[in-house]
Amino acid sequence: MSLKMPEPDEGVIARRAEIAAALRAIVGEDNVIDSPTGLRPYESDGLTAYRQVPLLVVLPETTAQVSRILAWCSEQGIKVVPRGSGTSLSGGALPLEDAVLLGLGKFNRVLEVDYEDRLAVVQPGVTNLAITKAVEDAGFYYAPDPSSQIACSIGGNVAENSGGVHCLKYGLTTNNVLGAELVLMDGEVVRVGGRTLDASGLDLLGVVVGSEGLVGVVTEVTVRLLPKPEAARAMLIGFPSVEEAGHCVADVIASGIIPAGMEMMDRPAIHAAEAFVKVGYPLDVEALLIVELDGVAAECTHLLEEVEAIAGRHGAVGIRVSTTEEERNAFWAGRKAAFPAVGRLAPDYYCMDGTIPRRQLPRVLKRMGELSEHYGLGVANVFHAGDGNLHPLILYDANKPGELDRAEEFGNDILRLCVEVGGVLTGEHGVGVEKRDLMPEMFGEDDLKQQQRVKCAFDPDLLLNPGKVFPTLHRCAELGRMHVHHGKVPFPDIPRF
Amino acid sequence: MSLKMPEPDEGVIARRAEIAAALRAIVGEDNVIDSPTGLRPYESDGLTAYRQVPLLVVLPETTAQVSRILAWCSEQGIKVVPRGSGTSLSGGALPLEDAVLLGLGKFNRVLEVDYEDRLAVVQPGVTNLAITKAVEDAGFYYAPDPSSQIACSIGGNVAENSGGVHCLKYGLTTNNVLGAELVLMDGEVVRVGGRTLDASGLDLLGVVVGSEGLVGVVTEVTVRLLPKPEAARAMLIGFPSVEEAGHCVADVIASGIIPAGMEMMDRPAIHAAEAFVKVGYPLDVEALLIVELDGVAAECTHLLEEVEAIAGRHGAVGIRVSTTEEERNAFWAGRKAAFPAVGRLAPDYYCMDGTIPRRQLPRVLKRMGELSEHYGLGVANVFHAGDGNLHPLILYDANKPGELDRAEEFGNDILRLCVEVGGVLTGEHGVGVEKRDLMPEMFGEDDLKQQQRVKCAFDPDLLLNPGKVFPTLHRCAELGRMHVHHGKVPFPDIPRF
Repeated sequence: MSLKMPEPDEGVIARRAEIAAALRAIVGEDNVIDSPTGLRPYESDGLTAYRQVPLLVVLPETTAQVSRILAWCSEQGIKVVPRGSGTSLSGGALPLEDAVLLGLGKFNRVLEVDYEDRLAVVQPGVTNLAITKAVEDAGFYYAPDPSSQIACSIGGNVAENSGGVHCLKYGLTTNNVLGAELVLMDGEVVRVGGRTLDASGLDLLGVVVGSEGLVGVVTEVTVRLLPKPEAARAMLIGFPSVEEAGHCVADVIASGIIPAGMEMMDRPAIHAAEAFVKVGYPLDVEALLIVELDGVAAECTHLLEEVEAIAGRHGAVGIRVSTTEEERNAFWAGRKAAFPAVGRLAPDYYCMDGTIPRRQLPRVLKRMGELSEHYGLGVANVFHAGDGNLHPLILYDANKPGELDRAEEFGNDILRLCVEVGGVLTGEHGVGVEKRDLMPEMFGEDDLKQQQRVKCAFDPDLLLNPGKVFPTLHRCAELGRMHVHHGKVPFPDIPRF
Repeated sequence: MSLKMPEPDEGVIARRAEIAAALRAIVGEDNVIDSPTGLRPYESDGLTAYRQVPLLVVLPETTAQVSRILAWCSEQGIKVVPRGSGTSLSGGALPLEDAVLLGLGKFNRVLEVDYEDRLAVVQPGVTNLAITKAVEDAGFYYAPDPSSQIACSIGGNVAENSGGVHCLKYGLTTNNVLGAELVLMDGEVVRVGGRTLDASGLDLLGVVVGSEGLVGVVTEVTVRLLPKPEAARAMLIGFPSVEEAGHCVADVIASGIIPAGMEMMDRPAIHAAEAFVKVGYPLDVEALLIVELDGVAAECTHLLEEVEAIAGRHGAVGIRVSTTEEERNAFWAGRKAAFPAVGRLAPDYYCMDGTIPRRQLPRVLKRMGELSEHYGLGVANVFHAGDGNLHPLILYDANKPGELDRAEEFGNDILRLCVEVGGVLTGEHGVGVEKRDLMPEMFGEDDLKQQQRVKCAFDPDLLLNPGKVFPTLHRCAELGRMHVHHGKVPFPDIPRF
């Protein structure tokens, strides 16, 4: 298989040297990369199946430079692909042959921390974990915690609306970002959101979060900080079947408990993780739940008992509760190492990302087992069970002819299944190029056109990150009616009573 | 003073009978109101200072009817003002002389309740409180609770991003709505969001919530349900000064506690409320905090002690903690009756709504006292202190020449002060016509234009609720470049590795 991407503009490719010179005039000699060796590291992001060397890479250091770069590219009709740390698993930062790759890595400063208003203002290249590091001595943290948090940037988190283990209780990126500075494709700098939970006027922050680089380049982010909970305890709960584990998850949530994290691993994932990190996971169960509860100590104890009682009603075996911080970390160590651990089961694996209503967990897991047999490919399941966000890891061998194609088809069937049961195509990895062509499974043509009309309100010439998210990119003029009136609408008086 | 509104189209006004006939063909004889007596009740919403009899009122019963009404109005170039229960305090549903007022009152059914996925699907005319009533026997509730919750509709809540006492802990409407069905001005029906916390593609739900009727007509809303907490207890805390009460609020939040509600009343409000409902509020203090803590019983007890300790450090006097549900309700009774209670202090009052960073509370309260002296008008403060959402009630007498003008000027000064200290123009009442002309205090011209470009992506002919939110309405063609290319952007192949 191959991936349909926007047709490269040969004229732009031929102008590479001229474009490099123009951008060097903005950012300085060293901040433009155009040598083949220098460009190689940028040819893919975390979705390594697709690679494309960019036209060139530009690494601005200030908002003013970003504004000048975009304004110039806009005038010249040159496409731009924004990039944070390049850890996207859906190909959101996949370069184009005829597009400038705009890297935000040099925007790496924490600008302000305000504990009374519980927020931090950071540049987009700051890593997710660096925000927590900057505030943890004061007892605070930034809640969303993608597995890639050591490397991934907060700008990338905003672009993809990233999640993590703790998003069940504390929300995704969109629930933890208060405001942003955004440079539009024509170079205009606008502010969306602010320092409080909601600003006046149309809420553009929600559009910007999760927009996958299609509406502008974020040059500053204001995030919400949370106080570190007084206590956090984790429990391991084994189940004789994934269905029973699934029912347990649904019942915990339906009972009114929102754990800080509630993760599920199936038998292949448990065995792989245990062989890898040896933390004492039970090997005689079909499913393992790791449930973390946090809050004040008394609350934790109380909720642990409630979860234990619910689990007992679903045939749980071998419940263990962490008694020390070391033990809690050990419980999580296997989960955190699960991807590399599963990576040892087969030469390659393909990590999927979809979300389903919690009560559909048993049905979807059962159907996934049938698909696994149908495609003749193993699958290990490691996922955020509490919010129904699946991460099936499809095992294959890229060196065996046809296996990658089969893995991709299997993956697409899983995502179709997610939509069929009332879920969505993504949980936290974004659409990118990976799920782009499945968007019509979820959205009608009218829905997609309306999304694209909003994209056009930000980037009318479709120069920002084309080929991502939308399976078909309509010229903006085709999406709305043309307007004949010009100027301001007059507002005459109406009397006040 | 008077209010500048879009110039009425005399041609449309002259066609009233013809328009009524066309709409009757869609919704039936009785669902169009065009008699002067019938129209009178619709001449204003909760912002009663401004009144305007609408062209006519149409009351559709189905999404298909809404679609046909909007498509027809769109073709004819006729403006439409959507209306829920008409309780808006910012004039969001103020009619226009040449606009159809589209009432959603007949959309009054709860369509589905799903406890496992913790959501309800409701029609927009269902009242806020009716959602809770529909699910409370199962132990659930809908969290945002505006003071008008008996009357206000969920569709109106979505339009204004309404709040309430419990939004400190549980978020505003935007944090409690999962999805919506939206009819665009051209009659197209689109779905935004879904049944899970985040859908794929551009997040249009965030734009729709708080859009004040400017982007479409919501015909179905999917809301998040929360389980009723096991325990809830309230405490009354008196303070010798509003500054000390303000510092206490900031410290409670900075300590990591998020109460279910944290409300403040100043001396005039306390005295008015106590005289009105006689619940035993202390009369010898300058400020009163009502703090509610909820959760499991053990957690409540623990947090009450912590709040008490913090309050003690800020000179609190006369702390009382509720021991029964009756007592808790009594503590709240005064707060809930505060607006009508304050209404007895003067012939008229003007309720303002702005939000400030919590740590600015003491400074803003002090300055408000100075403004009160300057304008010679009393002010009582009743507000959501925990999230910095102020509701100053300016006391005046409309029969005294100039007093309403002075009250409005005083109110505008308060809102300017909110922005000056880093806050925003609204907390939960919206911009409407009330704060429209203050938007430039908060947003630059580029910010407002970008918001309007997004508005244009939904309603390119500016027919939906014109004159609200934006102080200047630019023709859409003036906001972006014109496009010469047509058709789809081709996506050729790039190879997969």
